[in-house]
Amino acid sequence: MPRHLPLGAGGEFDRLRAIFTRLGDAAAELGDDCALVSLDDVTLAVSIDCSYEGVHFRTDWLSFEEIGWRAGAAALSDLAAEGAKPVGVLVSLGLPKTDNREPKADPGSDIMAGVAAVTKSVGGRVLGGDLIRADRYLVDVCALGTAPHPVRRAGARPGDALWVTGTLGGARLALQRLKTSRPLEGPLRARFAHPEPRVAAGQWLAAHGATALIDISDGLSGDAGHLAAASRVGLEIALEQVPCWPGVDPLSAVASGEEYELLVALPAAFGDARARSFPQQFGVPLTRIGVCGTGTGVRFTDRGQTVAVPAGYDHFAEPTP
Amino acid sequence: MPRHLPLGAGGEFDRLRAIFTRLGDAAAELGDDCALVSLDDVTLAVSIDCSYEGVHFRTDWLSFEEIGWRAGAAALSDLAAEGAKPVGVLVSLGLPKTDNREPKADPGSDIMAGVAAVTKSVGGRVLGGDLIRADRYLVDVCALGTAPHPVRRAGARPGDALWVTGTLGGARLALQRLKTSRPLEGPLRARFAHPEPRVAAGQWLAAHGATALIDISDGLSGDAGHLAAASRVGLEIALEQVPCWPGVDPLSAVASGEEYELLVALPAAFGDARARSFPQQFGVPLTRIGVCGTGTGVRFTDRGQTVAVPAGYDHFAEPTP
Repeated sequence: MPRHLPLGAGGEFDRLRAIFTRLGDAAAELGDDCALVSLDDVTLAVSIDCSYEGVHFRTDWLSFEEIGWRAGAAALSDLAAEGAKPVGVLVSLGLPKTDNREPKADPGSDIMAGVAAVTKSVGGRVLGGDLIRADRYLVDVCALGTAPHPVRRAGARPGDALWVTGTLGGARLALQRLKTSRPLEGPLRARFAHPEPRVAAGQWLAAHGATALIDISDGLSGDAGHLAAASRVGLEIALEQVPCWPGVDPLSAVASGEEYELLVALPAAFGDARARSFPQQFGVPLTRIGVCGTGTGVRFTDRGQTVAVPAGYDHFAEPTP
Repeated sequence: MPRHLPLGAGGEFDRLRAIFTRLGDAAAELGDDCALVSLDDVTLAVSIDCSYEGVHFRTDWLSFEEIGWRAGAAALSDLAAEGAKPVGVLVSLGLPKTDNREPKADPGSDIMAGVAAVTKSVGGRVLGGDLIRADRYLVDVCALGTAPHPVRRAGARPGDALWVTGTLGGARLALQRLKTSRPLEGPLRARFAHPEPRVAAGQWLAAHGATALIDISDGLSGDAGHLAAASRVGLEIALEQVPCWPGVDPLSAVASGEEYELLVALPAAFGDARARSFPQQFGVPLTRIGVCGTGTGVRFTDRGQTVAVPAGYDHFAEPTP
């Protein structure tokens, strides 16, 4: 097996691959969004996730508290996808000069309150941070946890079944509403503004035999490709099985980025009975959507017919005003 | 003792204090630049340090490799100041759109090579990262290490002597040359572009009884104030004892930021003989510059006479083009 796990397609991944190849043995094995570090009897899981105004959020779409929550959720979701238990986060915060029109506003403090709230919701704390002046708001979150039995994206085997947590497509629907200046309220706003990293679910799946685990922050279609490439299996996903947010069709649901749900391979013996107990424990469904086989890549089907699906979501986009 | 250690003066510190007060028990104890986390038998030291184009570096002053080295050194220096042993770093890299005038240039890869080189120089590795599109270059480094016997900035006692590693003022001299468009070459360029985090020296000082330790990235005068406030001691520093870079006077030397040397309180019994062995081991001097007493704050003297010294270096400045 090569030192560096194969990554899927995409501009960001091509660039990361080029950089890590150049670093040689000064870099650890690259593969998952989360790095694993063994120290004596402890395995650490650490991940860093940078949110930048205009690329990952807009200040006219979300409150600063919501911006902080989402930035924290993105990093903590990487821990969830290892089956790790969060310890805490470190946060670099970039703040532009404010115009003093609202002298009582304190965006930096609001952002940190959001990061702290999502971190506390999964049992962690804010451990430290850095504060800089920047042109745009910037929230970089490094999440740190322990992973006694980490699950990588590379362990799926032919014959495993493929499952997904939650319902997909809400994030994309919310973005479409925001882009056309429609209000975001109720469950859809909660889904977009306060996504819940599946930390407890990830630990449960790791304890119940998960062979491969990944979060679908890049969208199901893109991240399924990463899991397939890392595990050296082919995936077949039945679109009609994909659990969709109300009003969202399966093709949109699998292209929806920033979902922060988990895609998991489980042995065939993992039963429907266990899956039925999942919503009671974690508040969201666990749905079987496909199988792992020999071959490569991801094939989507609709009632048995192969269907073309748009490529995944690539954050490596231009800042937009 | 209050949960949050007293911090010294400065805009950044006032803002951090306000933010951490608001977070309440969702935040860990704030005090040092480095957070300590106890996991079973392991104590982790973690620190995050964000470098932003126009605030912390300019691309016409340094190569991208040098920019990466300096960004990594800043975070690793925080580990040195705990007496910690680095494990590795995670890096968020923000890259502006390039103009393709030099199609073979790869700033992102050059920056990461610099971060990797300084990390490797102290025994660590690049563990992971994130890559985003941004308006300006951005290098945020989270450094992770282990600290079996961490030394905080809060342990100095009246009667301890105050020492500093290296010679001070080179970074400020280099900045003055760069700001007036003079070339930076030889030892002065090396000092500015490739600062060496005092990791091995920090571990040695921790093992030899250091009661308080801080790096002087904010300048000796500013960081001495932080050490005094956290330790609840008064410091007296003799300017004529401060080891100065050739051509730099002591008043400039103590105001010079980004020095990445260590200021350390050691029991009075720590002898000159041990200090004389320091340069052979670490390549730089260890110089006694003052004493810790009762009282508060920092008093600078020149041959016994009190001298006013400019305030420390505050990074929380505007981006400059």
